Amino acid sequence: MGDSVKGLVILGSTGSIGRQTLDVVRGLRKRFRVVGLAAGRNVTLLQEQAREFSPRFVCYDGNTSAAHDVLKLEGVDCIPMEEMATRPDVDIVVVATVGKAGLTPTLGALEAGKTVALANKEVLVMAGNVVAEAARRGRGEIRPVDSEHSAIWQCLRGEKTASIRRLILTASGGALRDKSIEELRRVTPEQALSHPTWQMGRKITVDSATLLNKGMEAIEARWLFDVPLDRIEIVLHRESIVHSLVEFTDGSLKAQLGTPDMRVPIQVALCYPDRIALSSVPYLDLRQVGPLHFSELRLDRYPCLALALEAGHRGGTYPAALSAADEIAVASFLAGQISFTRIPEIISETINAHDSVADPSLDDILAADAWARGHAENLIGAAA
Amino acid sequence: MGDSVKGLVILGSTGSIGRQTLDVVRGLRKRFRVVGLAAGRNVTLLQEQAREFSPRFVCYDGNTSAAHDVLKLEGVDCIPMEEMATRPDVDIVVVATVGKAGLTPTLGALEAGKTVALANKEVLVMAGNVVAEAARRGRGEIRPVDSEHSAIWQCLRGEKTASIRRLILTASGGALRDKSIEELRRVTPEQALSHPTWQMGRKITVDSATLLNKGMEAIEARWLFDVPLDRIEIVLHRESIVHSLVEFTDGSLKAQLGTPDMRVPIQVALCYPDRIALSSVPYLDLRQVGPLHFSELRLDRYPCLALALEAGHRGGTYPAALSAADEIAVASFLAGQISFTRIPEIISETINAHDSVADPSLDDILAADAWARGHAENLIGAAA
Repeated sequence: MGDSVKGLVILGSTGSIGRQTLDVVRGLRKRFRVVGLAAGRNVTLLQEQAREFSPRFVCYDGNTSAAHDVLKLEGVDCIPMEEMATRPDVDIVVVATVGKAGLTPTLGALEAGKTVALANKEVLVMAGNVVAEAARRGRGEIRPVDSEHSAIWQCLRGEKTASIRRLILTASGGALRDKSIEELRRVTPEQALSHPTWQMGRKITVDSATLLNKGMEAIEARWLFDVPLDRIEIVLHRESIVHSLVEFTDGSLKAQLGTPDMRVPIQVALCYPDRIALSSVPYLDLRQVGPLHFSELRLDRYPCLALALEAGHRGGTYPAALSAADEIAVASFLAGQISFTRIPEIISETINAHDSVADPSLDDILAADAWARGHAENLIGAAA
Repeated sequence: MGDSVKGLVILGSTGSIGRQTLDVVRGLRKRFRVVGLAAGRNVTLLQEQAREFSPRFVCYDGNTSAAHDVLKLEGVDCIPMEEMATRPDVDIVVVATVGKAGLTPTLGALEAGKTVALANKEVLVMAGNVVAEAARRGRGEIRPVDSEHSAIWQCLRGEKTASIRRLILTASGGALRDKSIEELRRVTPEQALSHPTWQMGRKITVDSATLLNKGMEAIEARWLFDVPLDRIEIVLHRESIVHSLVEFTDGSLKAQLGTPDMRVPIQVALCYPDRIALSSVPYLDLRQVGPLHFSELRLDRYPCLALALEAGHRGGTYPAALSAADEIAVASFLAGQISFTRIPEIISETINAHDSVADPSLDDILAADAWARGHAENLIGAAA
């Protein structure tokens, strides 16, 4: 396995996961060659990355024609993400974009038989059925990068799907887990952005404070592991040491644990089935870790989580509408336009007004997304 | 896999593991047929078991000629364990004997290409190199039944040996973990036999109180998983919920956990690679489990553990001498002849006087065993 160099594309290379992916690749130059980098905002960092990793292709802000002039990189072609993800010299596509931007490149890569290392939640939440179908048709493979799904994936190595009784996602409880319902009303973006354990992007950190994130992870797990949503449980685990678990039919449980460091699940996804020491490996000393706690997650504290699970159970285009409404609501919260407790209200009002399509096509999903964005924006605009 | 009925032999069927194995088989009659049962003491229970499971063969106290008259079972042949374990209609041999009695049947089974579900610690501790060689030569397979080794085995499914950084055995600390060194001097057999979590046989419960057991498990793990002893660690974990862990080179750890119930690892060993619900599955509710603690194990509290690890590091016939001396010392302690703190002294004096043979043959091992028994008995007799 380790003999041939794998061609890598990183979509969202300047974001948190993208940067950590390049950090992993930096230590594994003999295994991976960066073929393409795509970023949406940070042009300076993209230029630096391109100089260090010498990709053949870059994509900036999806804008092919203007990108070359902006980037000023010699010998590098500017092509769209969709084209980059399906190139013959590409083996693994790391999808680390935020929101729906990763959807069409993911579908293209899977249909072209590529391995997709998926760090983008919205792709499976919005379009799980379409993505699963694309992977089946093109013999593409999805490997999770999220720490929770990576944990489950690792626990399922060598196990049969028929042996699974439940998937158990752990949740730290987010940045605001110790605040009262009353205090939550006055939460500032700064407070919501201070996650107790993980360093992540802004949108995902807010989703992690509302726990909408955890509901989206349950929906993702449903598609990744082909396990119905009612056999996916969420347990509060403050320490973020146990990243998730699988319970088997015979009463045995397996857990994956470790220091919270995203480079571990990134490397696990890139190197499977091998495991290789990172340049600075964050080994966990169990004897130094304090007690590990697990407890019931109270859904009444987390209306966004309850809404996400409800959308997941309803299926159709409800999860796409949920995800779109959340994106608008979180952006408005971060811009200081709405309060923290208004986020679930915007989502709830949007999905309740949504006209879902069963077993949706990609077009149905994109239409639901556009509709929900408009609806959520109207709700926020009308109140402003 | 599940289509053909597997022929099963249970050596030590009336002991704790033997009885629980039959309890598992009771719920899986379509998968397993009991071909043979062997027991050493409890004739009444062996008769009951034979009536319920209708084996073709039994063995009682190793005494073939007298066994038939004692057992009074119609249509059942009395044959030695060694013969039972190699019969062509046998697929899996459960070795649940105590002490060295399981050694030659295990070697025979492995050389005949059988699967051995190994619950006997002494077999690998005494003769790890000979057993590994027999398995290689006969293409036999060893599946661990001990909860710790089963945990590691489960965590290693789908993983490569090259990916292992450390094996981490958990230890509850035994029945006497909260006693002072002074109190340990006056420990009675009754106190040593009250293990906080596991229901086990008498000898193994005392070994678990001295933690010699855990040292033997480290030596076993060395042979089962082909990992050097200096990469096998022991961590104190009072709750006995996490049964053991594997740390991988990339910083990821996997743990197997569950309710302490030996039927789970027994069934895992019998049914591999499948997992099947037990008739009464002891599912663990993580939310109901209190905090899980892990801490440093202090070797100065556990001289027997230190001696076992030392014997393991020295290799040769030292582990066989250790195991034999322990058997004599524990029997004397249970008979009220020596104090609890005299157990490590007997072991230490025996292995220090032992003349070890490097890369030993089976004969060397049996000679070391006989010598160590005699030496330990003399030490006890001389003091009495």
